[in-house]
Amino acid sequence: MARTPRHRRLVLPLLCLLFQGATALLFAVFVRYNYETDAALWHWGNHSNVDNEFYFRYPSFQDVHVMVFVGFGFLMVFLQRYGFSSVGFTFLVAAFTLQWATLTQGFLHSFDGSYIHVGVESLINADFCAGAVLISFGAVLGKTGPAQLLLMALLETVLFSVNEYILLSLLGVRDAGGSMTIHTFGAYFGLFLSRILYRSQLEKSRHLQSSVYHSDLFAMIGTIFLWIFWPSFNSAPTALGDVQHRTALNTYYSLTASTLSTFALSALTSEDGRLDMVHIQNAALAGGVVVGTSSEMMLTPFGAVAAGFLAGTVSTLGYKFFTPVLESRFKVQDTCGVHNLHGMPGLLGALLGVLVAWLATHEVYGDGLQSVFPLIAKGQRSATSQAVYQLFGMFLTLVFASVGGSLGGLLMKLPFLDSPPDSQCFEDQVYWEVPGEQEAEVQRPLRAEESVTHA
Amino acid sequence: MARTPRHRRLVLPLLCLLFQGATALLFAVFVRYNYETDAALWHWGNHSNVDNEFYFRYPSFQDVHVMVFVGFGFLMVFLQRYGFSSVGFTFLVAAFTLQWATLTQGFLHSFDGSYIHVGVESLINADFCAGAVLISFGAVLGKTGPAQLLLMALLETVLFSVNEYILLSLLGVRDAGGSMTIHTFGAYFGLFLSRILYRSQLEKSRHLQSSVYHSDLFAMIGTIFLWIFWPSFNSAPTALGDVQHRTALNTYYSLTASTLSTFALSALTSEDGRLDMVHIQNAALAGGVVVGTSSEMMLTPFGAVAAGFLAGTVSTLGYKFFTPVLESRFKVQDTCGVHNLHGMPGLLGALLGVLVAWLATHEVYGDGLQSVFPLIAKGQRSATSQAVYQLFGMFLTLVFASVGGSLGGLLMKLPFLDSPPDSQCFEDQVYWEVPGEQEAEVQRPLRAEESVTHA
Amino acid sequence: MARTPRHRRLVLPLLCLLFQGATALLFAVFVRYNYETDAALWHWGNHSNVDNEFYFRYPSFQDVHVMVFVGFGFLMVFLQRYGFSSVGFTFLVAAFTLQWATLTQGFLHSFDGSYIHVGVESLINADFCAGAVLISFGAVLGKTGPAQLLLMALLETVLFSVNEYILLSLLGVRDAGGSMTIHTFGAYFGLFLSRILYRSQLEKSRHLQSSVYHSDLFAMIGTIFLWIFWPSFNSAPTALGDVQHRTALNTYYSLTASTLSTFALSALTSEDGRLDMVHIQNAALAGGVVVGTSSEMMLTPFGAVAAGFLAGTVSTLGYKFFTPVLESRFKVQDTCGVHNLHGMPGLLGALLGVLVAWLATHEVYGDGLQSVFPLIAKGQRSATSQAVYQLFGMFLTLVFASVGGSLGGLLMKLPFLDSPPDSQCFEDQVYWEVPGEQEAEVQRPLRAEESVTHA
Repeated sequence: MARTPRHRRLVLPLLCLLFQGATALLFAVFVRYNYETDAALWHWGNHSNVDNEFYFRYPSFQDVHVMVFVGFGFLMVFLQRYGFSSVGFTFLVAAFTLQWATLTQGFLHSFDGSYIHVGVESLINADFCAGAVLISFGAVLGKTGPAQLLLMALLETVLFSVNEYILLSLLGVRDAGGSMTIHTFGAYFGLFLSRILYRSQLEKSRHLQSSVYHSDLFAMIGTIFLWIFWPSFNSAPTALGDVQHRTALNTYYSLTASTLSTFALSALTSEDGRLDMVHIQNAALAGGVVVGTSSEMMLTPFGAVAAGFLAGTVSTLGYKFFTPVLESRFKVQDTCGVHNLHGMPGLLGALLGVLVAWLATHEVYGDGLQSVFPLIAKGQRSATSQAVYQLFGMFLTLVFASVGGSLGGLLMKLPFLDSPPDSQCFEDQVYWEVPGEQEAEVQRPLRAEESVTHA
Repeated sequence: MARTPRHRRLVLPLLCLLFQGATALLFAVFVRYNYETDAALWHWGNHSNVDNEFYFRYPSFQDVHVMVFVGFGFLMVFLQRYGFSSVGFTFLVAAFTLQWATLTQGFLHSFDGSYIHVGVESLINADFCAGAVLISFGAVLGKTGPAQLLLMALLETVLFSVNEYILLSLLGVRDAGGSMTIHTFGAYFGLFLSRILYRSQLEKSRHLQSSVYHSDLFAMIGTIFLWIFWPSFNSAPTALGDVQHRTALNTYYSLTASTLSTFALSALTSEDGRLDMVHIQNAALAGGVVVGTSSEMMLTPFGAVAAGFLAGTVSTLGYKFFTPVLESRFKVQDTCGVHNLHGMPGLLGALLGVLVAWLATHEVYGDGLQSVFPLIAKGQRSATSQAVYQLFGMFLTLVFASVGGSLGGLLMKLPFLDSPPDSQCFEDQVYWEVPGEQEAEVQRPLRAEESVTHA
Repeated sequence: MARTPRHRRLVLPLLCLLFQGATALLFAVFVRYNYETDAALWHWGNHSNVDNEFYFRYPSFQDVHVMVFVGFGFLMVFLQRYGFSSVGFTFLVAAFTLQWATLTQGFLHSFDGSYIHVGVESLINADFCAGAVLISFGAVLGKTGPAQLLLMALLETVLFSVNEYILLSLLGVRDAGGSMTIHTFGAYFGLFLSRILYRSQLEKSRHLQSSVYHSDLFAMIGTIFLWIFWPSFNSAPTALGDVQHRTALNTYYSLTASTLSTFALSALTSEDGRLDMVHIQNAALAGGVVVGTSSEMMLTPFGAVAAGFLAGTVSTLGYKFFTPVLESRFKVQDTCGVHNLHGMPGLLGALLGVLVAWLATHEVYGDGLQSVFPLIAKGQRSATSQAVYQLFGMFLTLVFASVGGSLGGLLMKLPFLDSPPDSQCFEDQVYWEVPGEQEAEVQRPLRAEESVTHA
């Protein structure tokens, strides 16, 4: 499906300009500052303590922003010859998604009939949506071009926003850190997409689908930044006060436990007891995913540790045993193993949310019940009923993700979108000017490393 | 101009010790804690809500601090054999500038006749000055030694502080994020410097003036950290409340648009449609520069997107078409292309500030006018008059930068300063002990990658 | 001491599972949310301004968290073939330490007879303990396996917590940034450990105990992130208000000075004036260590600069002249030179604390004396007496560290713990599946860089 250079010169630019033009137009017509960001609507003196909300949310926003761009971007640099694309397409796709999600989420959440009003919450929510899109990107990493990815982001952002709106606003499902709305949705969207885009001849570029020493170290930058800021991710949109504290705390402990179980299982399942970087880079993060729904609840510190331990175990075993089956049996080629890091831990996290919601009582939550389960606090819903809604939310998310991902796959098969040929998947040169291709005009005897990089 | 080892052993150490000794002495005589940091002057109980200012500014300070050291430092690591110098000299020069700017800015802004009083704002302002110095460093990257750079920082910090003081304090020009004071000033200071230091024989080390695969990935660390924290950069010194919210928001959206236009233009202007890492690493950031002046104003979200789009376009075209002309016609060798990332987008940002100030009305800003345009709010100045002042500020900045950069260039030509020879520009070995130079005593058969790194 | 693969497959997993099981059990029995994180105990409305403490501490926590994982993790990636282990074992050991320190510190500091109550302070304190453990790791880097390191963390965390409790709670010693409790303790614990684990035949793997070009750049990521966030590290646990401001300010200036003196001394002590990356990566950070105790005090900005300058000087000279002696005379093999970065600057910092405490007066501190020296403010102790206590705290820390490190060394000699053989120290392949070992099934002509990475 590789096209002529002239064709390629036009598709991505035209798509970028078209998409940017459209969102700019919609911004002009619909997007306005909200009461906290508009000069005429906001004044410090009129605001009590709680109105410092911006200042309490802004650091979380920045942490989430780091995770989306540094975390996801560098985590995917593990491939030996796909670093430019991993970090570059992450950059492109996330930048577009931030604008587009501002619109799609804005129309659903803060449209007053005339305008969408944006503030710091808009930035956090748009970053969350970009997270889901990048999870899907992980499933098809190396097998898709930037124009395809932009189309994917266009569709996925809409479906993400609708699914999130139905769950959180219509059904009253709780999912602060997005076990369902972000991780389950993003993973299964990407997996169905990958199924539709299945390449029977991918073996031709298999030699490129592995890491080298330095690319694994770059990927660890992504892992570590995701790991350390995950407490901010899960707590970014929760109620202020004890809820935000508790969410950060639970996430922190869950991640420590998933790290320990990942190391244990990685060594245990290898032939000679040696650790596998793929597990450490990914499965160690499953503790953040698995408490995405329940970390705002009274999970207890022990519950967080236990959940994290389980998630790290399941995720590592998934990388070891299930990923090969996923390809051979189900014809799903999952480059980054998002099924192991986001899919299964996301579902586990949803189920854990069902359980913890079902156990919610007035005794345990006291007046704080209002912040976590407002419908139970108001007597409009029992804990059991909330648990059923949570479970239904999970299934609905799977439906949205699978239908959406399949549609997305068909969309991305449009022939003009310039997908890489089977023999050049996982290869930056298809889309990037890669240094070392042109012979450098060397004017002195080469040292060994130069003979490599210039050759 | 390369000197003997013995000479080189003395110049940098003596300069460091002299500069550090002088600033330490001035610190001892003049620098004191301000009322927020002095144990005897400050007590929590006496302070109302607004006095939590430290806590609202400190996260911004840390974000700016990340940008200066990680962002600028790693952005310049793109050269294949100049990574130690890029990140190392950034470190040295910025560390000195932080101390020196505390003094020069302190004398102008917080000197009470006896003492300079320092607090968290001093740290932010000093980091801003370091940003300007590092922009200038980008123009001469690879062609100057550390002793030269320290002298540059010495002079540039003084001129930066004076220019900033005249604009912000005397003329009432608004420039929170520094489109003029930081970007325009830093870029043209560096470009005039580079003009004076023009090397007609730079061709001799041209083979080193390019990237390799891994150095481009390191540079992307710089890009991404600059990109994600830029909302904090522009909003760090603004008034608290709606202004800070709005500034962050505008910067965020401007950057998403400059990213899309950079990808579009990079593919469109290449022969075969392939993306150029130089554009992505740099031009995608132009959206942060272009709203440096206007992001605190009622730019509107659409205005931010439009400005960012324009800046990314101009910047990418600059890299593609203007940088070669700058060298061939104007004899300005601009290693990092600071004219494209900071110069032109900085000027555009200044002009955008003129426009948005000119459009300021009491209706649009309400009581918030006081925070952004206090002189207009007090009736001491019309919007048109403010716009004229803004324009004058831009020209004054260009005068300061061009005269200062020229002086700086002459200063840096002092022969004892140990500049690298034409054939060894962009080469770490001139100033650093680089591993791989000594043959390792290998005691077992080499694998291929070791034969490279040890050779 | 290298064991069979089957043995290795079991030791680390069993240890991980055992440790995780035990801490999970203790979490279940003892760990509960504190009043700020429990839904039933906390409500926003009941809290005054000062109770926003979580929001003022959380950003500091995140900064410290970055330092522990990104900072320490990547700083140790400088070795050419030990990057996976450096960043991976940091991850494993720190994750375990965070849980275990929650328990050990909790029992000493927040145990109410039935439960340990955890909140954001617990996270900060646990990260501090992990910092000390990772400092000790630096001394034995490359010579120990992950199972040994887990045992080290188990013991060191207990002793760290006891030492910290005695100093801070029983003796009323001030040590906010941990010159004594973290740096001195961690360094000498690691050095005594290294003495016990002395390898007379380490020469066999000396060819691996050096850096390559890219590993030095990765290490600079660690350095820079440590450097920029150190103001948050030292101020994270201090009293809110002026104390936290002042601590951040002093640390910032101290680090700028240690950077300048490190560059000066590195060039001055080299034969040909070239800078040594080892110095820049490490000694430039000594300014953060040296004000760990005194930065919350009225050190004055000049005092901070002077202290930083001295620390950078001592540390660089230590790397140059003392590290070789440490090995040849004292049989202490200190891989990262923690004696130079944490040991000597830590002791200097403790002594500086003695001096500044001794100079404390009611005049200088005013009502703020209460926040820094509560026992002096209450009249229970004179400044001289406080100084004596500080000095005693330093000696006690040395006793704890030396006895503890020696015990730790004996513990880590347990034969089943799978330590690497002398000829394979500093080599990832012992514990990791390293890419490039298996021949890739290449299906097209290789370009030069691929012939390297696949060979």
